[in-house]
Amino acid sequence: MKINGVNINEHERIDDLHRDDLFLIQNPARFCFGIDAVLLTGFAKVLKGERTLDLCTGTGIIPVLLSAKTDGVEFIGLEIDTEMTEMARRSVLLNNLEDKIRIDNGNVKNFAELYPLASFDVVTANPPYIKHGGGIHNESAERTAARHEIFCTLNDVTLAAARLLKTSGRFYMVHRPDRLADVMCSLRAVGLEPKTLRFVHSYITKPPKLILIEAIRGAKPFLKTPPPLVIYKNDGAYTDEVREIYYN
Amino acid sequence: MKINGVNINEHERIDDLHRDDLFLIQNPARFCFGIDAVLLTGFAKVLKGERTLDLCTGTGIIPVLLSAKTDGVEFIGLEIDTEMTEMARRSVLLNNLEDKIRIDNGNVKNFAELYPLASFDVVTANPPYIKHGGGIHNESAERTAARHEIFCTLNDVTLAAARLLKTSGRFYMVHRPDRLADVMCSLRAVGLEPKTLRFVHSYITKPPKLILIEAIRGAKPFLKTPPPLVIYKNDGAYTDEVREIYYN
Repeated sequence: MKINGVNINEHERIDDLHRDDLFLIQNPARFCFGIDAVLLTGFAKVLKGERTLDLCTGTGIIPVLLSAKTDGVEFIGLEIDTEMTEMARRSVLLNNLEDKIRIDNGNVKNFAELYPLASFDVVTANPPYIKHGGGIHNESAERTAARHEIFCTLNDVTLAAARLLKTSGRFYMVHRPDRLADVMCSLRAVGLEPKTLRFVHSYITKPPKLILIEAIRGAKPFLKTPPPLVIYKNDGAYTDEVREIYYN
Repeated sequence: MKINGVNINEHERIDDLHRDDLFLIQNPARFCFGIDAVLLTGFAKVLKGERTLDLCTGTGIIPVLLSAKTDGVEFIGLEIDTEMTEMARRSVLLNNLEDKIRIDNGNVKNFAELYPLASFDVVTANPPYIKHGGGIHNESAERTAARHEIFCTLNDVTLAAARLLKTSGRFYMVHRPDRLADVMCSLRAVGLEPKTLRFVHSYITKPPKLILIEAIRGAKPFLKTPPPLVIYKNDGAYTDEVREIYYN
């Protein structure tokens, strides 16, 4: 099947992002993006003219949404898997975003060969959450790689971000609360100072399920902790804040 | 003035702790305990027969409350200020708790001369929150010392706790959210693994004002993050959970 001259392969589907007529190609047999990626694009600040790199970009959801939500000038997504890279590139073409978004195929560990150091204003990441060896691996190899730190650990991500960000550049990451100590210490170890931490709860009476973190290269220590972001109202509908992130 | 044979000095007052007929001597011109100390005694777990050390004990509020709330066998409070030490000792006598509580006068930095290493099951601390050089110092010297890291830094507290706790011993601390990265990295650096983190909010729609943290000596990484502890209901009354901590 071809849409706007872009191939859509068997097993792939086209998801409406409900924003600026944007669509994303996904393969449900592989990894599909979740609310964590969407919330990260609501948390990250990209200013006019800034250059952004998204590590472990997967489907390319983060560059696609950030290109619509912000006035950034260039959005690069880095993906290790060649098939995912190719699919994300087709999503860029499908949306006619090739002037703003580029999807690169490469390993986060090789950041120094891929990009000039200190060349980005913003780095984002929705990395694998689960420590290698932890959790249950009864999934496809691709889903396992997206969820487990097999090809890319937290420390790989923070090191690449620290080296590729300009001084005072901003790193935005979504992760799991159980890894919070790992996240804080990994950021500090590479010179990225945690500046904003927000807990994300499904319901406010439940434990948080995600953390959103902003770290700034070379900043002084002082962590801001805004009120928690709550996903659902008691009736199960999205809260106004989450509706705003999804649709505005 | 004498009560039960215990001297109460000029400027001092006797506060009813609303629990087991306990009272505490305080001097309002100096530092008085706050809700943070009380919440810490609701968060800390002390099991039957366990020995507990409270660092930077001040008025002795934490050993006094923990002795009433738990089945711990011995509670030691360590305080650097000689006048505060003497006042806390009189509070112990006033409550006839001298069989369970001892207040020592000494510097946290000298922990190795004060106590045998690896000799406590539990260590607690409500330390000064503000980094030396930060904040505003327009207060009495005693209040400044209680609020600022002048005689005792976060790293002094975590190091003493790590060395004085038995393997798998538990450290409970209350601190400020803006220091969360410092807290996590300081704990990790001395071999105390952060295991539980709870945010404390005045109102759930406001940013958290305190953090309660449990760290275990030599434990494996995995942080639990229970739902936030909220102090006030919308009408300004204490929530049921805080009432429970204060009065039950």
